[in-house]
Amino acid sequence: MRPVDLIRKKRDGGELTRDEIHFLVSGHTRDEIPDYQMSAWLMAVLLRGMSRAELAALTEAMLHSGVILDLSSLPGAKVDKHSTGGVGDKTSLVIAPVVAAGGLKVPMISGRGLGHTGGTLDKLESIPGFNVNLSIADFRHTLAECGCALIGPTAEIAPADKKLYALRDVTATVDSPNLICASIMSKKMAEGIDALVLDVKTGSGAFMKAEADAVSLAELMVETGGRMGKRVVALITDMDQPLGRTVGNALEVAECIEVLRGAGPPDLRALCVELSGWMFCLGRRTATVEEGRRLAAELIAGGRGLEKFREVIRLQGGDPGVIDDLRRLPQAQHQVDLVSRRQGWIADIACEQVGIAGIVLGGGRARKEDAVDPAVGILLHKKVGEMVAAGESWCTVYYNSAARLPEAQALLDRACSITPEAPAAPRPLVRQIVGSKG
Amino acid sequence: MRPVDLIRKKRDGGELTRDEIHFLVSGHTRDEIPDYQMSAWLMAVLLRGMSRAELAALTEAMLHSGVILDLSSLPGAKVDKHSTGGVGDKTSLVIAPVVAAGGLKVPMISGRGLGHTGGTLDKLESIPGFNVNLSIADFRHTLAECGCALIGPTAEIAPADKKLYALRDVTATVDSPNLICASIMSKKMAEGIDALVLDVKTGSGAFMKAEADAVSLAELMVETGGRMGKRVVALITDMDQPLGRTVGNALEVAECIEVLRGAGPPDLRALCVELSGWMFCLGRRTATVEEGRRLAAELIAGGRGLEKFREVIRLQGGDPGVIDDLRRLPQAQHQVDLVSRRQGWIADIACEQVGIAGIVLGGGRARKEDAVDPAVGILLHKKVGEMVAAGESWCTVYYNSAARLPEAQALLDRACSITPEAPAAPRPLVRQIVGSKG
Repeated sequence: MRPVDLIRKKRDGGELTRDEIHFLVSGHTRDEIPDYQMSAWLMAVLLRGMSRAELAALTEAMLHSGVILDLSSLPGAKVDKHSTGGVGDKTSLVIAPVVAAGGLKVPMISGRGLGHTGGTLDKLESIPGFNVNLSIADFRHTLAECGCALIGPTAEIAPADKKLYALRDVTATVDSPNLICASIMSKKMAEGIDALVLDVKTGSGAFMKAEADAVSLAELMVETGGRMGKRVVALITDMDQPLGRTVGNALEVAECIEVLRGAGPPDLRALCVELSGWMFCLGRRTATVEEGRRLAAELIAGGRGLEKFREVIRLQGGDPGVIDDLRRLPQAQHQVDLVSRRQGWIADIACEQVGIAGIVLGGGRARKEDAVDPAVGILLHKKVGEMVAAGESWCTVYYNSAARLPEAQALLDRACSITPEAPAAPRPLVRQIVGSKG
Repeated sequence: MRPVDLIRKKRDGGELTRDEIHFLVSGHTRDEIPDYQMSAWLMAVLLRGMSRAELAALTEAMLHSGVILDLSSLPGAKVDKHSTGGVGDKTSLVIAPVVAAGGLKVPMISGRGLGHTGGTLDKLESIPGFNVNLSIADFRHTLAECGCALIGPTAEIAPADKKLYALRDVTATVDSPNLICASIMSKKMAEGIDALVLDVKTGSGAFMKAEADAVSLAELMVETGGRMGKRVVALITDMDQPLGRTVGNALEVAECIEVLRGAGPPDLRALCVELSGWMFCLGRRTATVEEGRRLAAELIAGGRGLEKFREVIRLQGGDPGVIDDLRRLPQAQHQVDLVSRRQGWIADIACEQVGIAGIVLGGGRARKEDAVDPAVGILLHKKVGEMVAAGESWCTVYYNSAARLPEAQALLDRACSITPEAPAAPRPLVRQIVGSKG
């Protein structure tokens, strides 16, 4: 088998066999097939597509490039949630402790901010002391102790994806549904889970702006998970405006603690309950999703989710005191209110722009090696469909560097559209469910 | 400008600007843009195509990656011929001396065997002592002395093509008409020529098997040459059977000397006269192609082409004695006749198979680093449309290694179809002329 022949086959629209795909992926992972051949193949895959069988083989090859966790010795179903990424998208920090409090195991391996979106790991690291770089042994220990653990990628899990992702990032081969699906599913399947709930974002702040693209990706992932014997469902959810009211690492942690205290913004609360409900149902903790939602709401109302969050923070080396005193989270030195010049309704908050404003403030990375400022961010006082008076603040910007403020402020000013008439009712938070046969 | 953005633009079917293409090519040549980005871009070009403006910019960027010869101080028009490659395709060895004998300058930079085809350099090197690796200064000196010089690629000329070609070879991005055109034309334009005659082969022994593909490539090259201010014409010529009667380096040199002596096989003689005629016309040595053909025929009949070949051999360090005594060329130790089992007409000689048989005998390279055996090869006693008696030899195989013979013999036996009825008249040697406005 020669790589050049397999590249040519895909280039000409042919279907690669399982063995051919394993040959390419394992050869690349072992540095036997050079990046320049792999990137030509990736471009051919992006432009020519893949059959479902090829996609399954690719996912499997990437999964088997590393360690697959065996959590069968731990009691309870193992269930995870994965989001395709958004702005203010912080549900993992609520869901993991709530679902663990409900008796399931949540072995969650998350990522960092990517493009204009935030990352769970960056948010968690704003909790003083919190360590996301656990060894696999410590990950398993934390999971056994408290039912959930939240860590970053490890060298052992899906090393093929690490190499391929770095290559895709610089060769314009990121936005292929097949390659996105294989990347996500190979990592999630390596977690040793029984079931997976996917939160596929759509809208102006998502990677898949068009709902049809989000649905296609969701279908690929649900089918691929099914082929690998897992129960998988995908919720297509709104990312036309930021989720909740905060964008920025410590601000988002505080907002999650508010939700776990039974408060917080209604959209964030609702989505956390919805996703947890599906996890309980797919994890067979409840017979229906509706029962799952009720259980999630009860665990929040009874404070058991909050206590579980305190426990996992403590086990992962963080300061559990943040649970009771949000001022122990990093605080920005300065803040400024952005005010509306006229009375009206908020018609739109351009979601990607808000995400970029957060990065400009220092809350995300322009380059891979940049450090993240955990304290900075944006608090939205108004969301789409709400009224604002002339001179009233629609958001507060938290910042540390005055030099960074003007660009962020300009982005936010442009992001917010205010109209004299009330806009149409916003679209539902959950747009569609894909693969609810789980 | 970031390479990833330019890859994405081409991936999505966009048109790159001249500056963007220069940025990619010059960055890659200077090792600032890595192979893995360039190969993704090459695959996108292959699958998405290029506009004529993009192709011109690519050719120009590759041309300007190195030295462009300035031969304006030498008297006479500078004219070259380039073939897309075939089996037994040896016209350069006749044409260069004939056209130089007619008063034009022929600065010919050729290649080695590629795939199943032979290469001018490998043929020339079968002449004892002949040096194809002249410096640019020696190349210019030889050209000034005798009007033609035949050398291989130098490090100074079109280095961008060298890097790109090596990359294309291993990433299945060779067979793109745009990339083929830019590769050929950038090297030819660097020779400092005024006019170029292209011999674009079509048929079973060519890289472009279908005539329509050959014509498309010819049109691209003629237009690209025209944009760069050169007079260019392309002849679409037959490669459904080997050209002439010999395949193999020293055998082909001997056949060319026969042609220059006024003998040799009619098809080879005719094509050499035709191509030389176009060169004389484009080089404005004659007013018409017909006059050009007459001039070429006279130069051969009067022995002036042969004397010019003797001169260039001497100037490039070779043994000029081969002109008078073909036995001074390398001779194979063994030979065997392949005979027909029945009487009939030769209906077809599968041309690519014959080329591969020549490589199997050792006359070409299976891998880049292989040495070439100059003496081995095939002499065809019969060509398509000729009669063969039962037991009569249709070809002789010249070989040095008995171990290599059976595979070559099997290939040749399968390549030759003999039918009881006479086949239809073969298609004309010159199928079409593209761009005869020169």
